[in-house]
Amino acid sequence: MKNYADRLVSAIHKKGNPCVVGLDPRLNMMPDFVTSCSSKMEKEKAIQVAITNFHRIILDVVSPLVPAVKLQIAFYEQYGIPGLLAFADTIQIAKKKGLIVIVDAKRNDIASTAEAYANAFLGKSTIFGSRESVFDIDCITVSPFLGRDSLEPFVKACTEYGKGIFILVKTSNPGSVDIQDQKLVRTGEPLYEDLAKMVNDLAVSAIGESGYSSIGAVVGATFPHEAVHLRRLMPQSIILVPGYGAQGGNSNDVMPCFNEDGLGAVINSSRGITYAHRSRSISREEFVETVQSKLVQMIEEVTFSLRDTFGSKK
Amino acid sequence: MKNYADRLVSAIHKKGNPCVVGLDPRLNMMPDFVTSCSSKMEKEKAIQVAITNFHRIILDVVSPLVPAVKLQIAFYEQYGIPGLLAFADTIQIAKKKGLIVIVDAKRNDIASTAEAYANAFLGKSTIFGSRESVFDIDCITVSPFLGRDSLEPFVKACTEYGKGIFILVKTSNPGSVDIQDQKLVRTGEPLYEDLAKMVNDLAVSAIGESGYSSIGAVVGATFPHEAVHLRRLMPQSIILVPGYGAQGGNSNDVMPCFNEDGLGAVINSSRGITYAHRSRSISREEFVETVQSKLVQMIEEVTFSLRDTFGSKK
Repeated sequence: MKNYADRLVSAIHKKGNPCVVGLDPRLNMMPDFVTSCSSKMEKEKAIQVAITNFHRIILDVVSPLVPAVKLQIAFYEQYGIPGLLAFADTIQIAKKKGLIVIVDAKRNDIASTAEAYANAFLGKSTIFGSRESVFDIDCITVSPFLGRDSLEPFVKACTEYGKGIFILVKTSNPGSVDIQDQKLVRTGEPLYEDLAKMVNDLAVSAIGESGYSSIGAVVGATFPHEAVHLRRLMPQSIILVPGYGAQGGNSNDVMPCFNEDGLGAVINSSRGITYAHRSRSISREEFVETVQSKLVQMIEEVTFSLRDTFGSKK
Repeated sequence: MKNYADRLVSAIHKKGNPCVVGLDPRLNMMPDFVTSCSSKMEKEKAIQVAITNFHRIILDVVSPLVPAVKLQIAFYEQYGIPGLLAFADTIQIAKKKGLIVIVDAKRNDIASTAEAYANAFLGKSTIFGSRESVFDIDCITVSPFLGRDSLEPFVKACTEYGKGIFILVKTSNPGSVDIQDQKLVRTGEPLYEDLAKMVNDLAVSAIGESGYSSIGAVVGATFPHEAVHLRRLMPQSIILVPGYGAQGGNSNDVMPCFNEDGLGAVINSSRGITYAHRSRSISREEFVETVQSKLVQMIEEVTFSLRDTFGSKK
């Protein structure tokens, strides 16, 4: 049976690249033609409409080009219920366009609470006696801070419902050194290595026909040196790589996240694609053109580096 | 100026105890008289109504008795948008009753994303040019896994808006040993000690008239031995203690989380108070009586142990 990893690998093959577009609503950076709805309707409705329309336009451009999109839920939560309604709308539009939907939520909790999060995003919740899908996305990012037992409800949901997770291993921010880079007495190695081994351990239970697992990892594009080693420690996990573009990572920096087969990683860019316009007074046509050209440029950079690094295998 | 810690300490004095009631919706465990609304209205509306009514009944009972309530957001998210509408409703009811509202969300992210979470729960979001409160609660739990720079936007929101955070230091689950207990080469001590020092460092910027800081910590009731040391490392931080009752911690186990002044900790119980009824066919009157008696029992246990441990000072 095809699992999440198989679906993602197959989408990467189909689109010919492993790029992911981040859909992070920031009302104060959206073009005026999108936010002008605020003068025509009640505020709560306008929030939902502006965010959903902004993403609909972007999805029209990017869906033929990339295998997946990533929604950072914090940017929806900041707008309260109307923001979360737009979150649900955006998911539906992306799914109808055949895209794989990743939600960057970094959720983490214990026991039945972790299960509640897993139900919300990947599995099913029991509602008045029947089991029902709620946000029903393909994959969510999770934080391992609470330990292996806190990850298990998510892993279980992945195998049960054909979904995926990316577990934080080495994040892209400078402060990631504070905890993730601490050398452990037990191993003499940084914590992120220990986490990579835990990911690899969990990954075994969810390997698909592609040879890749639905249990993946997050490794920031800003740490290419660490990525070399992490790639080897989790050979069957797909790595989600944030930090491309706006955060400083380039296409050479992300190459260590790939395997020799030219697979095994997806590269996300958010602001670099969707907020690349210089002025909010940009027209709809110019905005579409900017998104398209920035994404095509990213795809060209990444696929060029892949060919350059792994040759004709990719 | 009174900050979050001052408001919490003053509420503890007023109510005469440091107990917190957890409001975690689980539709399949609620009394039938609450969930029977599902036969009378459309499903999405029934979810919101059942959860909100359940909490309204509980809040009527507990608001004269305790200083604060804690909402575990995972249990609302599992019911999607209707669950989150009930989350917003429950917050409003609790605030109107004068309770301090803590949200257990364990949010964590980097840079502008952490800022978006801080805006959503503690600060203000920019919506069509004006700055507006969104969920506007008093305090949120946050995970430190991404490092100090990931906590700073939350700390900033605390000082700017008179709000608070509890940073995860040592969680109540068995798996908390996997990462939090790892001894670091740099210090020879477990990671949770390092985290406690980071909390203490951040706490300095938000100390109120009470001498306590709005930057607190989470230490599970299931680890009383570790709590002794952690209490000393963060003398001015208030400790949120989960794991009382259902998870196995008793009133003696939580005493190490308090300072000599009998202050410095709040003790949470969720299931032990709100789902203590044996049968879902319980009447409304019996349900109210069960919640009341379980909470009174917890308050008596905790205040007895406080007097026993710290004498007449409390």
